[in-house]
Amino acid sequence: MTGMQVSNDKRLKLVSGRAHPELAEQVASELGIDLLPVSAYDFANSEIYVRFEESIRGADVFILQSHPAPINKWLMEQLIMIDAAKRASAKRITAVAPYYPYARQDKKHQGREPISARLVADLFKTAGADRIMSVDLHAAQAQGFFDGPVDHLWAMPTLVEYVRTKVDPDNTVVVSPDAGRIKVAEQWGNRLGGVPLAFVHKTRDITRPNQATSNRVVGDVAGRTAVIVDDLIDTAGTICGAVRVVLEAGAKDVIVAATHGVLSDPAVERLHASGLRELVVADTLPIEESKRFPELTILPIAPVLAKAIDAVFEDDSVAKIFDGDAG
Amino acid sequence: MTGMQVSNDKRLKLVSGRAHPELAEQVASELGIDLLPVSAYDFANSEIYVRFEESIRGADVFILQSHPAPINKWLMEQLIMIDAAKRASAKRITAVAPYYPYARQDKKHQGREPISARLVADLFKTAGADRIMSVDLHAAQAQGFFDGPVDHLWAMPTLVEYVRTKVDPDNTVVVSPDAGRIKVAEQWGNRLGGVPLAFVHKTRDITRPNQATSNRVVGDVAGRTAVIVDDLIDTAGTICGAVRVVLEAGAKDVIVAATHGVLSDPAVERLHASGLRELVVADTLPIEESKRFPELTILPIAPVLAKAIDAVFEDDSVAKIFDGDAG
Amino acid sequence: MTGMQVSNDKRLKLVSGRAHPELAEQVASELGIDLLPVSAYDFANSEIYVRFEESIRGADVFILQSHPAPINKWLMEQLIMIDAAKRASAKRITAVAPYYPYARQDKKHQGREPISARLVADLFKTAGADRIMSVDLHAAQAQGFFDGPVDHLWAMPTLVEYVRTKVDPDNTVVVSPDAGRIKVAEQWGNRLGGVPLAFVHKTRDITRPNQATSNRVVGDVAGRTAVIVDDLIDTAGTICGAVRVVLEAGAKDVIVAATHGVLSDPAVERLHASGLRELVVADTLPIEESKRFPELTILPIAPVLAKAIDAVFEDDSVAKIFDGDAG
Amino acid sequence: MTGMQVSNDKRLKLVSGRAHPELAEQVASELGIDLLPVSAYDFANSEIYVRFEESIRGADVFILQSHPAPINKWLMEQLIMIDAAKRASAKRITAVAPYYPYARQDKKHQGREPISARLVADLFKTAGADRIMSVDLHAAQAQGFFDGPVDHLWAMPTLVEYVRTKVDPDNTVVVSPDAGRIKVAEQWGNRLGGVPLAFVHKTRDITRPNQATSNRVVGDVAGRTAVIVDDLIDTAGTICGAVRVVLEAGAKDVIVAATHGVLSDPAVERLHASGLRELVVADTLPIEESKRFPELTILPIAPVLAKAIDAVFEDDSVAKIFDGDAG
Amino acid sequence: MTGMQVSNDKRLKLVSGRAHPELAEQVASELGIDLLPVSAYDFANSEIYVRFEESIRGADVFILQSHPAPINKWLMEQLIMIDAAKRASAKRITAVAPYYPYARQDKKHQGREPISARLVADLFKTAGADRIMSVDLHAAQAQGFFDGPVDHLWAMPTLVEYVRTKVDPDNTVVVSPDAGRIKVAEQWGNRLGGVPLAFVHKTRDITRPNQATSNRVVGDVAGRTAVIVDDLIDTAGTICGAVRVVLEAGAKDVIVAATHGVLSDPAVERLHASGLRELVVADTLPIEESKRFPELTILPIAPVLAKAIDAVFEDDSVAKIFDGDAG
Amino acid sequence: MTGMQVSNDKRLKLVSGRAHPELAEQVASELGIDLLPVSAYDFANSEIYVRFEESIRGADVFILQSHPAPINKWLMEQLIMIDAAKRASAKRITAVAPYYPYARQDKKHQGREPISARLVADLFKTAGADRIMSVDLHAAQAQGFFDGPVDHLWAMPTLVEYVRTKVDPDNTVVVSPDAGRIKVAEQWGNRLGGVPLAFVHKTRDITRPNQATSNRVVGDVAGRTAVIVDDLIDTAGTICGAVRVVLEAGAKDVIVAATHGVLSDPAVERLHASGLRELVVADTLPIEESKRFPELTILPIAPVLAKAIDAVFEDDSVAKIFDGDAG
Repeated sequence: MTGMQVSNDKRLKLVSGRAHPELAEQVASELGIDLLPVSAYDFANSEIYVRFEESIRGADVFILQSHPAPINKWLMEQLIMIDAAKRASAKRITAVAPYYPYARQDKKHQGREPISARLVADLFKTAGADRIMSVDLHAAQAQGFFDGPVDHLWAMPTLVEYVRTKVDPDNTVVVSPDAGRIKVAEQWGNRLGGVPLAFVHKTRDITRPNQATSNRVVGDVAGRTAVIVDDLIDTAGTICGAVRVVLEAGAKDVIVAATHGVLSDPAVERLHASGLRELVVADTLPIEESKRFPELTILPIAPVLAKAIDAVFEDDSVAKIFDGDAG
Repeated sequence: MTGMQVSNDKRLKLVSGRAHPELAEQVASELGIDLLPVSAYDFANSEIYVRFEESIRGADVFILQSHPAPINKWLMEQLIMIDAAKRASAKRITAVAPYYPYARQDKKHQGREPISARLVADLFKTAGADRIMSVDLHAAQAQGFFDGPVDHLWAMPTLVEYVRTKVDPDNTVVVSPDAGRIKVAEQWGNRLGGVPLAFVHKTRDITRPNQATSNRVVGDVAGRTAVIVDDLIDTAGTICGAVRVVLEAGAKDVIVAATHGVLSDPAVERLHASGLRELVVADTLPIEESKRFPELTILPIAPVLAKAIDAVFEDDSVAKIFDGDAG
Repeated sequence: MTGMQVSNDKRLKLVSGRAHPELAEQVASELGIDLLPVSAYDFANSEIYVRFEESIRGADVFILQSHPAPINKWLMEQLIMIDAAKRASAKRITAVAPYYPYARQDKKHQGREPISARLVADLFKTAGADRIMSVDLHAAQAQGFFDGPVDHLWAMPTLVEYVRTKVDPDNTVVVSPDAGRIKVAEQWGNRLGGVPLAFVHKTRDITRPNQATSNRVVGDVAGRTAVIVDDLIDTAGTICGAVRVVLEAGAKDVIVAATHGVLSDPAVERLHASGLRELVVADTLPIEESKRFPELTILPIAPVLAKAIDAVFEDDSVAKIFDGDAG
Repeated sequence: MTGMQVSNDKRLKLVSGRAHPELAEQVASELGIDLLPVSAYDFANSEIYVRFEESIRGADVFILQSHPAPINKWLMEQLIMIDAAKRASAKRITAVAPYYPYARQDKKHQGREPISARLVADLFKTAGADRIMSVDLHAAQAQGFFDGPVDHLWAMPTLVEYVRTKVDPDNTVVVSPDAGRIKVAEQWGNRLGGVPLAFVHKTRDITRPNQATSNRVVGDVAGRTAVIVDDLIDTAGTICGAVRVVLEAGAKDVIVAATHGVLSDPAVERLHASGLRELVVADTLPIEESKRFPELTILPIAPVLAKAIDAVFEDDSVAKIFDGDAG
Repeated sequence: MTGMQVSNDKRLKLVSGRAHPELAEQVASELGIDLLPVSAYDFANSEIYVRFEESIRGADVFILQSHPAPINKWLMEQLIMIDAAKRASAKRITAVAPYYPYARQDKKHQGREPISARLVADLFKTAGADRIMSVDLHAAQAQGFFDGPVDHLWAMPTLVEYVRTKVDPDNTVVVSPDAGRIKVAEQWGNRLGGVPLAFVHKTRDITRPNQATSNRVVGDVAGRTAVIVDDLIDTAGTICGAVRVVLEAGAKDVIVAATHGVLSDPAVERLHASGLRELVVADTLPIEESKRFPELTILPIAPVLAKAIDAVFEDDSVAKIFDGDAG
Repeated sequence: MTGMQVSNDKRLKLVSGRAHPELAEQVASELGIDLLPVSAYDFANSEIYVRFEESIRGADVFILQSHPAPINKWLMEQLIMIDAAKRASAKRITAVAPYYPYARQDKKHQGREPISARLVADLFKTAGADRIMSVDLHAAQAQGFFDGPVDHLWAMPTLVEYVRTKVDPDNTVVVSPDAGRIKVAEQWGNRLGGVPLAFVHKTRDITRPNQATSNRVVGDVAGRTAVIVDDLIDTAGTICGAVRVVLEAGAKDVIVAATHGVLSDPAVERLHASGLRELVVADTLPIEESKRFPELTILPIAPVLAKAIDAVFEDDSVAKIFDGDAG
């Protein structure tokens, strides 16, 4: 035979965007490795420059970016990093987006709208991503937007574990803040051991047809600890409305739990004033010091990301991390 | 200038698969045209043969197939027709699938599952479809599975119009058969003028942890006409369970309304025995004589399809058909 | 250097569709491995559900499906399995289709027909297959329908080896059942050591212009054992016509050999009554007990498939299996 | 409504490569138009330069190239012209290749060969061709190599019409020069009104196993005019061998008919010396003066190309040109 | 014939992003049309929402966005608008980007860098753009980054026309600010009627090897009006250095001309203090009031864009606008 | 776990086209390996046949072709080899093109031209190349034409090393033969240790407007050794003009250095007569004996290619070979 033959190891490289470097460092630390050194800065006209300071030829590269505001900048930075990795001969590129950008624009509500969540999947693909890793997608269907493997991780087990220590399961009710998220509430209910369910329903009073809608709790919350659950909290309007009506309906106290703490203004102010006992979120998005308030608990997502990255790299099952529940 | 120049008309052609030719004929009749003549038959080994008996060069071709069982056969027939149209120089090809095949497999519930609804979108694209037209997708996110325009039509307004004539809005409640479909029920509630909402909740009795789950109605149905709504009825197990508990909870009577009457065995038997007053479905799928029973009302979907096809062909707004609500 | 490095083994996984599980088990047995456990069943409306019960991350996955009737179902099942494997992070996916579906629709005989064999190649690609493996394609040109490697295996050497033991080469003639398959007959003639050739020619009697055509043997078959060869036998009309005229032309006896025993009704009845001495086929398609008749000999294709799968996995030459003749 | 609206004519433009400009001029003349003016020349290092001297924005552009030697040059020129047309905003581009380059390399005869005919289809597609038009493909399956419409034209009717005037159908036999082309001969036989068939068979004398093969006529040619048919004549070795054995077998005289007169050296010398009465070819390839010899008849292909181009442009049926037989 | 037939007009729609609406309004005004009404705003977390308020089915849609800072936001907005137009059944989509984002990152200067200008072309394509229109690309090679037509417009003729009125051609010199842009200077020189050329060269003093580099004018500028030309002015460091050395070298006065006035801080301050007589730019990018200073002249680019859009829509030559010079 | 597992080595294979086999042999020799045995020849009609005589399954295949005239033939041969490698299951394919074909047609100079350099990148991709390796591209932007990794190698360091030994740096000037290549000259100047720069400028005498242009040296060359540099020398018209005016301007002597010695007629004659002292080129293109003349020095490019191929195969940095300067 002609040619030559050598043994074939595989190498993992972890790259971080600039939006939330602490998260990447925690993931690297969990994996027992260092982050790949990267030069990244903005030109005067706001164009982004990126360069990897170490060879990544033939490597299994994970490019981790968080997506707080200004989200379009951080998304473009990640796309540019993926392009650079593709052209630098990475063997495989995984775009790690703990909070999936534009996750909520996952369908057309009206004619002539975009489906930006699909667009984002296409942009990742075009830039050169072979796979996507994300946490608690707004709708699980978004997995189908990407033509390739999507590792859909769950922060919910982490949140449930924590909340379980804070409530008496015999005296708890899980509450969905609107009609569209009851499925998630149902999963929480099951994981907490079969606690009852309620939800807040926006209704029109048909006896007064021209009047505004009002919120109403459906289900029994009186005297119980209400755990209001959602996938993300942005300006917290819906959530704070839910806290209010749940308390009005006689709940003992309220814990709010969500994966993604977007916490755009005026969320912090509203939440702090809402009367909730505790807000629990994961740190898929950076939460600046100025946004932290006494009732806020932040659970680290890095252990889940690190386990998943390691499993992907080692060809282990990712489903196993979640006892077979996720992708 | 060299070459030659002629005026440029556009032509519409409507092609029907063999699964539900009556539907295509009704659509053609609404449009005031004839169906394109097609040869289509099965070879002895079940492979399908297709040929268009008239030129379709440069035409705007709509290939309409319904997708009852055996669904894989009818899907493949449609794909083969699309391939033939592409190779016969159609200018644009729209796959019309009133019931979108594999609509329910739109995400991975567990690891190592397919996302067959995305696969179907990719198969349409690969065969040569430029656009898809479908009615009441199981999840609206499936629009994002196709890389191109999707005309997502609604049977719901047709169903609501009919049901409105059968109920007293002041004494009606809209019921979702499970936690995952409350959003649809909410839309029904609004369209019926703000009638109240309820849903059936599968719950575990936490005082008897090792025992089976039971269904429970959440919301007030006593003395009211309950309109149980869903996007499709397959074996009708969930629906009939819902009818039962709603009646047990004191509902005056029950109307079930769904877009897609799949009605796989033993749906008819179950529904007929369930005690419902009326089942209303659209004819997106053929319903054989043997499956028709006294309580069943079938509403024609052809007018909606014809209006949408005409709008697509004439570059009119499809959203307008539904007062701006749909794609 | 940052990151981490591990050694990189490669793993083979063999998955079977439900159309012909015995074949997959034989292939696994030849390879000395177990089949990957799979959940696969039909929903009530005939949609197919599939899930792999074991991780296949990073594996070299071979998805073997046979394609008897209902062929569209088995093709869709294979496509869905490929989609699931792609999304479950298989490293490479080979669609093994011993009988290539729609192999005979490999060109347009008239305007406005599909080229379904090309469509099938595109569907495999779109679902996620990196490569295709098939046996004795109807036309070798179909290899060019797939944009990637095609392992085109040969059952013919297996069939020839067997037939050689049944005939006296000095008193044998190889017969093509029509003008289009003489090339295959020529290859048989060469492999049997240069035995003569004949073929059956459908001709019109020009002295009676308005009358039907009749079959005629071209070449000398009198007193010889005639080996009629083809790539597949479907309803056996052509073959049985050939058996008759060959016997009428004085052949001593007739052996029919073909790779794919489709044997659609009324093939078995016809063949059994045709007067042939023996029918030899490979088991690329399942042949139910009810279709087996005394003159039928079934040769196992599993050894050829197993050798080819092993060669593909181990990066050995597949051509070598056939002494350099095939792809 | 915003924006503006104008009427929408369509325009045809015909572009010629440099390999056979006379053919393009004849096609233009049949269509009653002028060729688009083009600058095309070779740089000193043999790279090709191309520019269209007239706008083709929005036009239906047909780029006609013939493919004699040096075939790679003419193919690249056509690809470069297609690229230029794509970037100059042509609305639709048809690559017209009367002789399809690399048509004979349409499958792998052995492992590790290319399938160059598929590659050529992919190159056309990549450069920007929306459709292909070709004449008498070596194997009709090559239509399936292109992902889009292929207009597969036939020179055979033209050839048959001519030959019919030269023979007595009651005393003619159609002869295939080898086992692989009998199907074509059969079509000739039918078109000539059911004349008999024969073919030349390369056989090994099994009584003298180590000796060379010899050709043998199968079928009755004695006293008849033999019409030997093929799709192309390259060096004419096989054809001249066939002429010889047919004459030796007692044929009255021999006419050879083929679509593509490649006529590579030493074809002309061989054919002229072979004893044939007449060689009939179409001018899909240019035939220089020096290659013309008394027995050679060249039939113009331009009328067929012009009719097909006009039909494609006008959205008429191309099949109709051939009475429904072709694509 | 079945089906129906209608006449086929074509419609132009012009859509504007939010980065520079005045430019779009000027273009619309030049075209004599109104802009398509669009809803576009930012969600609290900075995700962008877009919806077209009028049907664009079948229309020829031009989506015009300018790309000042924050450039990633405006690029994403344009991509989202393109996605919405694609899904709303636009017939053809042209991305109009007067200043092409990331134009300067058009090659790898070092290993492991991205080629962001190519990435941007791919993002446009993926979102659904059929064509791109841009003005004075940093390197003309970037036209080749897009797989489709690129209308590369020129502001230079507009700039030259203006500058011509401000200088005495017999006493003018065109100066390139560095070695890499002399080609552009040469084009200016020719268009101004053959005025001489000079450039500023960064050189190292080889007698003092460890010392810094210094700038030097090559060519004769003494006593002449120096016209320093470039494609864009960002922070103006290079340009102001050039102004200084050209004045030091005895130039009478200096006019600076560039297409794209990026003018990032501290460009305005530097330029105003540099001693130049006049700065001439086009308004491909918005220039806020606060950035306008006495020496600044802004020439409108809208007439060029409007002529090009009209030519593309009407299938007229775009090259003609520039007397055959551009694409 | 089911299936089987084996260790996973990687293998390099080097394949050579027929245009310049000596270069491939030198590269193989540098790597200490043999070339893969290949059958390649022309059919009578100039179509190319290719077959690899050894298995390449799973191998990392480098297909090296040089591109002298007839360049379209050698390009097509390389594409056909890539197609064969793809279909023969190569794991990764690198097209090595030391001189990139059509490198100079990298933009549209006028409307309705192709961008052939982009087309070539697309053809490589379509045939199956995963990566491209080339030397000294005419414009570095061409890296962006390929959607994947491009290893852009540099011959310049090799040329500089050689020229350094032939000149006195204190008495040398680097000269660009026209305005467009000064950037390259600047890099030479820096690498030679900061030697001065000059260039030849084509100018119109504005006092005699209707007369021809003339060349003029800008910069000081009197008494110095002038090193005229370019990326390629084709017919040498521009270069010889530059040699002449540089000598007329008093240069002591002239060395011309270029990467690619295309040397089309009448380059050799012209160069030999031009009065230059030495011409230095790399052997990226074959230079026949008949083209060698006393002043010609040919430097071997094989060491650079071999180092780069080894680095790509071993996942080492290619940038490192050039001290971090290249891709």
